[in-house]
This record gives sequence, structure tokens and C-alpha cells, in this order.
Amino acid sequence: MIGAMIAPDTPRPRAPISRRADYRAFRLITTRWMDNDVLGHVNNALYYSFFDTTVTGWLIERDLIGLHDGTMWMVAETSCRYLSEVAFPDVLTIGLRLGKLGNSSVRWELAVFRGEADEASAEGHFVHVHMNRQTRRPTPVPDSIREILATMQI
Amino acid sequence: MIGAMIAPDTPRPRAPISRRADYRAFRLITTRWMDNDVLGHVNNALYYSFFDTTVTGWLIERDLIGLHDGTMWMVAETSCRYLSEVAFPDVLTIGLRLGKLGNSSVRWELAVFRGEADEASAEGHFVHVHMNRQTRRPTPVPDSIREILATMQI
Amino acid sequence: MIGAMIAPDTPRPRAPISRRADYRAFRLITTRWMDNDVLGHVNNALYYSFFDTTVTGWLIERDLIGLHDGTMWMVAETSCRYLSEVAFPDVLTIGLRLGKLGNSSVRWELAVFRGEADEASAEGHFVHVHMNRQTRRPTPVPDSIREILATMQI
Amino acid sequence: MIGAMIAPDTPRPRAPISRRADYRAFRLITTRWMDNDVLGHVNNALYYSFFDTTVTGWLIERDLIGLHDGTMWMVAETSCRYLSEVAFPDVLTIGLRLGKLGNSSVRWELAVFRGEADEASAEGHFVHVHMNRQTRRPTPVPDSIREILATMQI
Repeated sequence: MIGAMIAPDTPRPRAPISRRADYRAFRLITTRWMDNDVLGHVNNALYYSFFDTTVTGWLIERDLIGLHDGTMWMVAETSCRYLSEVAFPDVLTIGLRLGKLGNSSVRWELAVFRGEADEASAEGHFVHVHMNRQTRRPTPVPDSIREILATMQI
Repeated sequence: MIGAMIAPDTPRPRAPISRRADYRAFRLITTRWMDNDVLGHVNNALYYSFFDTTVTGWLIERDLIGLHDGTMWMVAETSCRYLSEVAFPDVLTIGLRLGKLGNSSVRWELAVFRGEADEASAEGHFVHVHMNRQTRRPTPVPDSIREILATMQI
Repeated sequence: MIGAMIAPDTPRPRAPISRRADYRAFRLITTRWMDNDVLGHVNNALYYSFFDTTVTGWLIERDLIGLHDGTMWMVAETSCRYLSEVAFPDVLTIGLRLGKLGNSSVRWELAVFRGEADEASAEGHFVHVHMNRQTRRPTPVPDSIREILATMQI
Repeated sequence: MIGAMIAPDTPRPRAPISRRADYRAFRLITTRWMDNDVLGHVNNALYYSFFDTTVTGWLIERDLIGLHDGTMWMVAETSCRYLSEVAFPDVLTIGLRLGKLGNSSVRWELAVFRGEADEASAEGHFVHVHMNRQTRRPTPVPDSIREILATMQI
């Protein structure tokens, strides 16, 4: 199944499929009946809601979401590679790790795990930019936050 | 605004922002109140629903969606780069063009245009794999379909 | 089809199906591929997003949404009766009229029209309460707003 | 808070707010960042996705969903009364009980419980009609299914 889903005409060698041990934090997501589309599997757009929920949930739980202090995180870029299907009523676990910590941006890397599976059903990335909420311009990530983010590196 | 949204730490040079003339087909999308998240703009995941709707709508309208003939299109990979914010009640136009036509896969390229704007608010890609619905394995795109797809190249 | 969808065991007599002329304002909604569920039609929950978009859009366009003046509208109750199926790529028109204007609440009545159809595919209601945003308690709808709302009665 | 949300102009006496013990089966739903709308709470439409997920999940797990045997369940009517706000990252429990079992329809009653709360944050109903999938006409619920449904009465 998994091989079948990889775009077969892509010339560049594919990275090996990641496993749970490749991630640092995890979030449980229950699927919903409405997530399944006509093909009977979770629609491709919703994987980004799972990524978004995992990153934002992690930030909220550590009080790093900003908003009240005049900063905010804005999404600059996302991607997802779909490896095998998931469908309601699957319970999913989303893995999260820090990919790269820039001056004012963070590259998060994520994966979707179905039920008890150890191999990812999907992998993606999510670039967050730390912004001044008023000016909507990038602002450096302060050292106090960098320290916490750094713990998410694998 | 636009520069502000580009991840500032990314070293590689950015492609110029695409315009309507860079796309071949267009689909109108009305935004919904629920599309806006807490930050007051359309949530990042929903851009993929706009891409998905545009590609699938184009296929359905040309009777290329398969399903009844034992084939189907499955999404293998997607990405989006967010350039500037859009929000309800904006009306959006999604631009579509063929990026690359492989043996059994198609790379679509898309952009989101806000209201009457000529510069894209977001750009992305969407890789569809032509599958045998039963075996769920890639199957070559037949010549009759290739000809129609080829008209979408810019 | 329409009769088929009405719960057949319901003893009370059904109201006649409403038509476009029974409503005062209209909003166009484009369906999305993801709106269709496994049964190939728009999922029941999304009708409420169409209602919500229509009421909130109408309020925003008349600058009656509050928020910046310390008030807000909160939804207290909603319902929908599904009469016939709609599905992507249908374009929908949502009809809106004022049902009842209370001291601090508004009962909106809505209907979903498919394509050019004159008979509703679904009908529902939506009760909005005018609230003080800080105390989150109901606050009377001021006369200036009552006058505008009253124009929506049929 | 709860009283504040009840439409204040509604003359009829309100039923007391239901508790967990008033329901027979329960389903856990994890909220998502995207569920929150601009007001910072779960958008009213999504409660219906929670209801839908709970009813359909319950049917799937008991192999009562039909589809493969030429029957299906179609939603004829839904409603929800919003009593107090819920928001991401809340974990919700949805309570389910049988309201009324007709000849070819089922009235489900549901409630949303936030975190460990014993009082409902929202209550609603959901009427499912048992249909012939081909003719899309109501068809009686067979006795074998009626027996299982009957266990869901309180």
C-alpha cells in the first residue's frame, strides 16, 4: 500500500518512512465522520489541520502562543507527503519535532501515525514565523523561547 | 505585507509571486465565516481544500474523475506557500495549471487570488496519482486523458 | 426525493416547502469537494456553516457584527430540516429572513436552494443573542439595530 | 455563564440541563485549533459534526451502518441548543441515547460534555431515516436492528 501511494514518476530518492522514535512530542487526534471524503478516507486538506492542531496545541500548553504579549505566529509554508490511507474511525497520533530554528522562524516536522502503527502514514513540515502582531512583520524569537524550542530537536 | 509572510531565514532565492496570467483555468471559491480562525484570517489547512476543490472540480467537469471506470486519483503530495492573508468575506479565485505530466501522475500547480488582485496570496502544488481503484496501485494515464491534461500547460 | 427525506414517522403536519420568495436576502455559497461525505452528498453539519456564513455575512456587511463596540452575537440554538440532497459541485443560494425579534435575541430563518431551484433543499433556524462581550450576558438590541433588522421581516 | 447563553426571550420553560447519567453511550472527541472561530470558541456548526460522528461511529462499530447491504441512513432533521462555550484544546465527550424509534426512523438525543464536567455544554437531536440506497426511499428498520437500538433507551 505504502509504495503505491508514492508518486511513481518522481526521480529523486525518497527518504525512508519515519517512525515514532523520530519525533519528540505527540498529540492524539480522533477522526470524525465528516473527515472522510467520497473516496472513504480522510481528505488530504485535513492532515494540515492535524499538523496545525499539534503545533498550536504544543505552543498553547507551554504558554508560547503569544497574542496577549503583542506577538503571534503566522504560517509561511506547509507540505505533506501522503504515504498510506487513514479513515474514520481511526485514532491518530501526530508526531512533532523541531526541524530548524531560524532567527524569527521555526520549521516544524510532523508525521501522522494510524492507531498503533510505528510507520508514518503521512509526513510533512510547517514553517511558523514569529511576528509582531501590530506591524505584522517578523520579529526575532527571544532566547527564553529558543531554549524551550531547542528541546524539541531530535 | 507580502514580504512579511515569507520565511525570513530561508536562504534560497524566492521565485517571483505568480499572477493570474500564469494559470490556465480558474475556479471561484466563496469563503465561509468558519474558515476564519482565532487570528481572523482563513486557516492554513483550508487552502488545501481550495486546491482540492479546483483540481477535482476541473476533473469532474471533464468527466475525468474516474471512479465508475475502476480508476481513481489519489493525492500523493501537496504544499503551500502563504504570501498574504485572506479572510471571510473575501471571494477567492483559484488558478490552476499543469506542472508536470508523468507516466501515472500529474503535478498540478495552483495559486489563490483574493478579490480582484492580480498577485497571488498563496501558491502551491498538488500531486495526483492515477490508480486502479481495486488494487490501489498506480496505473498509466491513458493517452485520451493525457491530451486533455496537456492543454493545461502554460 | 423530497418526500422521501422527511422523517416518515413524524405525526405533526409538515409545513409546505418554502420558496425563494419567502426570503428577504440571499447569499451565494460555492460547495467544496471536501463538503461531500462518504454518501456523496454535502454532510449535514455543513448546512449550519452555510447558515452561519449567511447571518454573519449579512451582519458584517451592515457593520452590525459588534466586537469593536464591546458587543457580540452568540448562537443559542439552531436547527435544520433536510429535504433533498445537494452535492459538490452544486452552487447554493441561502435565503435569509427575520423570524422573530426579541428584546436581546433574534430568530433568523434560513433555507438552502440548489442551483436554480425555487423549492428549498433544506430549511432551518438560527437564534442569535446580543451579548456584552466582557460580561458575556445578554444585552438589549439597540433601536438603531432593531430598525435595520426589521427590514428583514417578510 | 450557562444562563447567559439561553435565548432570554424564549417564553416556554426550559428543560433542566442534562447530565452524563442521562445518556447511554459516549464518544470522545478531541477538538482542533481550526474548530475555534474568530470568537475563540468552537463554531456552532461543528457541534453537528460531533453528533454525526457519535451516531455514525456507534452504528459502524455495531456493523449497523448499512451501505453494503443496500440500505443507508440519511439525516432528516437536527437541532442543537448551546448552553456554554467550549474551545480548543478542550477534550469533549458526546453522550448518546435513543429518543424515539419509529417504523423507519430513529430519533437520537445527544449532549456535549466539556472535560470532566457533568452538566452538558450543549444538547441536541438527530433524526436518521433508514433508506433503500437504490430508491432513496424509507425502508422499515428490521427487527434485528430494532433490538440493538432499543438498548440505547434510557
